[in-house]
Amino acid sequence: MIVLKLGGSAITDKDRPETLDGESLETAADAIADGLRSGSASSLVIVHGGGSFGHANASEHGVTTTAGTHDVAAVHDVHGAMKTLNEFVLSRLVDRDVPAVPVHPFSTAHRDEAGRLVLPTGQVETMVAEGFVPVLHGDLVAHTGRGVTVVSGDELVAALALDLAADRVGLCSTVPGVLDDADAVIDEIASLEEVAAVLGDSDSTDVTGGMAAKVETLLELDAEASIFGIEDVSAFLAGKTPGTTVR
Amino acid sequence: MIVLKLGGSAITDKDRPETLDGESLETAADAIADGLRSGSASSLVIVHGGGSFGHANASEHGVTTTAGTHDVAAVHDVHGAMKTLNEFVLSRLVDRDVPAVPVHPFSTAHRDEAGRLVLPTGQVETMVAEGFVPVLHGDLVAHTGRGVTVVSGDELVAALALDLAADRVGLCSTVPGVLDDADAVIDEIASLEEVAAVLGDSDSTDVTGGMAAKVETLLELDAEASIFGIEDVSAFLAGKTPGTTVR
Repeated sequence: MIVLKLGGSAITDKDRPETLDGESLETAADAIADGLRSGSASSLVIVHGGGSFGHANASEHGVTTTAGTHDVAAVHDVHGAMKTLNEFVLSRLVDRDVPAVPVHPFSTAHRDEAGRLVLPTGQVETMVAEGFVPVLHGDLVAHTGRGVTVVSGDELVAALALDLAADRVGLCSTVPGVLDDADAVIDEIASLEEVAAVLGDSDSTDVTGGMAAKVETLLELDAEASIFGIEDVSAFLAGKTPGTTVR
Repeated sequence: MIVLKLGGSAITDKDRPETLDGESLETAADAIADGLRSGSASSLVIVHGGGSFGHANASEHGVTTTAGTHDVAAVHDVHGAMKTLNEFVLSRLVDRDVPAVPVHPFSTAHRDEAGRLVLPTGQVETMVAEGFVPVLHGDLVAHTGRGVTVVSGDELVAALALDLAADRVGLCSTVPGVLDDADAVIDEIASLEEVAAVLGDSDSTDVTGGMAAKVETLLELDAEASIFGIEDVSAFLAGKTPGTTVR
């Protein structure tokens, strides 16, 4: 089982509201279609982030992973924008004969009082077993005591990887990997301390954390995880370890 | 906790593909808004059927609650049609200040090898606790060994009523209740045998069973259940028992 995250910034133009990066998305969709055809990525779950679809809407309504809202209009705005992006992603995949189907986290997940994410995965597992490619996305979720809060794509990746005992996790980002002080890709990371100095925040509005949070999340997984750029989705799905490997 | 089902035939024109019965839907939405405002229906979960949105699409693709498909185009057709109907229902409710939010069963439920429906309800429970009104709908679900099959609104109602320990269940149909030989509403039903003779199938295409199946499902619940017409949604939400009561 492979869990592949398509970063929101990688498939949208993060500086323009609700704008796709069509070329990048098609590069990723081509690579996914090839990976399925070649059999090297036959059990695949995809998660995509929000990019310019979710983040601007969420910050406008003051919603983060911890700050909630009870405003139903905010739910429809943010969740609606994420569903629109999800449809774009699905249509690019289905056009290439990838049997991609939507799984909207708002419909299935929630947070308990302590903010812990509860994500049922029986539906995802069954879809994969039946030959489908479930496509989840950053979203809102009902949160006990706080209305709804944001769930990030990275959180979903971690929950799916743990629950489905994923063999490999790939995070496709705007950069070719985690970069050191000289902007060179760091090959391997085994602890947060060894890279803490070089990890900053991402440039545009991102309510769900930058590279440091990603590395921290991946370090907690049993599965080997890779962080790479859009041009390396293909190599990752072919079984290679492009970019930065987090163990 | 109240679980209210809006029958697909009651809110759509079942004889014309993908056509709303706008007037009936607005009658129901008005009644729901009144019920929430008056406080008589403050913890409410809504389920709607497919009517002319889901059923025609499902039969075209040969999908029923037991006959599945692995065709991704069928998934997008049927699930997409149901999401469209769900958006119509949500918009009528939100227009009336009902904090209605979508829960798409395909995103959360699945069937195991024996065909048993597994429906997580933590998200629904949290939404209700936070003051939202979750709106589910008949849909497709991943089904172990069969691809995807149909899940009916009635099945969802039963699963929700059991899991959430609903106090009351209401099924709003095209008829004012279960009718006897002389077309008079039967006040109360306590066993299937006493009404078996008068229960036929519904008139139009319905892959998910007619009145007999509804009564059978309701008889298995702990909650008191009512079957009534669209004009009685208001009375039901006000705590009355219009139409036929199934105990």
